[in-house]
Amino acid sequence: MEADPDIDLVTEHPGEPPDQDTLARKFQKELNAGLVALVLLAILDRASEDLYGYQIAKQLQLSPRAPTVKQGALYPVLRTLSAQGLLDSRVVPSVAGPPRRYYRITASGRETLAKWGGIWRDTRDFVDNFTESQGVMS
Amino acid sequence: MEADPDIDLVTEHPGEPPDQDTLARKFQKELNAGLVALVLLAILDRASEDLYGYQIAKQLQLSPRAPTVKQGALYPVLRTLSAQGLLDSRVVPSVAGPPRRYYRITASGRETLAKWGGIWRDTRDFVDNFTESQGVMS
Repeated sequence: MEADPDIDLVTEHPGEPPDQDTLARKFQKELNAGLVALVLLAILDRASEDLYGYQIAKQLQLSPRAPTVKQGALYPVLRTLSAQGLLDSRVVPSVAGPPRRYYRITASGRETLAKWGGIWRDTRDFVDNFTESQGVMS
Repeated sequence: MEADPDIDLVTEHPGEPPDQDTLARKFQKELNAGLVALVLLAILDRASEDLYGYQIAKQLQLSPRAPTVKQGALYPVLRTLSAQGLLDSRVVPSVAGPPRRYYRITASGRETLAKWGGIWRDTRDFVDNFTESQGVMS
């Protein structure tokens, strides 16, 4: 048994098979890891103005099929994307509460979005090629 | 800056923006983490007989759009899926070389495949909803 953090879906109960809910939760978590960053870049790319965290979270919830992405999970991703030079941000005082940090996508972020979008589509088609040719729900 | 292993795409060069190739490689790696397991379950679900590693790898390469999945990366995933009770395996002596481990999907593996397939489709549609409504390549 390997201890590879990239693919070992279950680490809590070595030697004991995990239940289906645990497996589903971890699969969703692994999927989200890269895709939340892609979706945030896409939202900021098409935004006509700078957005702060709550506005971005609201756009995510507009989808009828939102998977389990919690608002609190967005902030570390926004910080990481900023540290990577893919987003710029500025802090603006708010009358109603604490200052808000507004984000916008950078030129480097747009380049990354284009590349990740291509990787996403290739990977999506690759996976669909194996999962759609059969009755997965059977 | 957070040190969250789930979303921090770059750890080698703190404080220094990563280049586009590094970002693309890591995005692909994060995407693959969960999806390779899903694809392996799907391949073994539709296989008419037990398969060993090389046969599975060959099926993966049949896709015209195979992303960067190396054959050696399959074996730890196969072992993890077995430890999770989603695959059974048996070792068969080979005339031509070392013994081969043949894998088949279990009932629990079929249940997981159905659940992961649903999560995959929901997540895929969620991501497409944000990335397809714009010119990602622009």
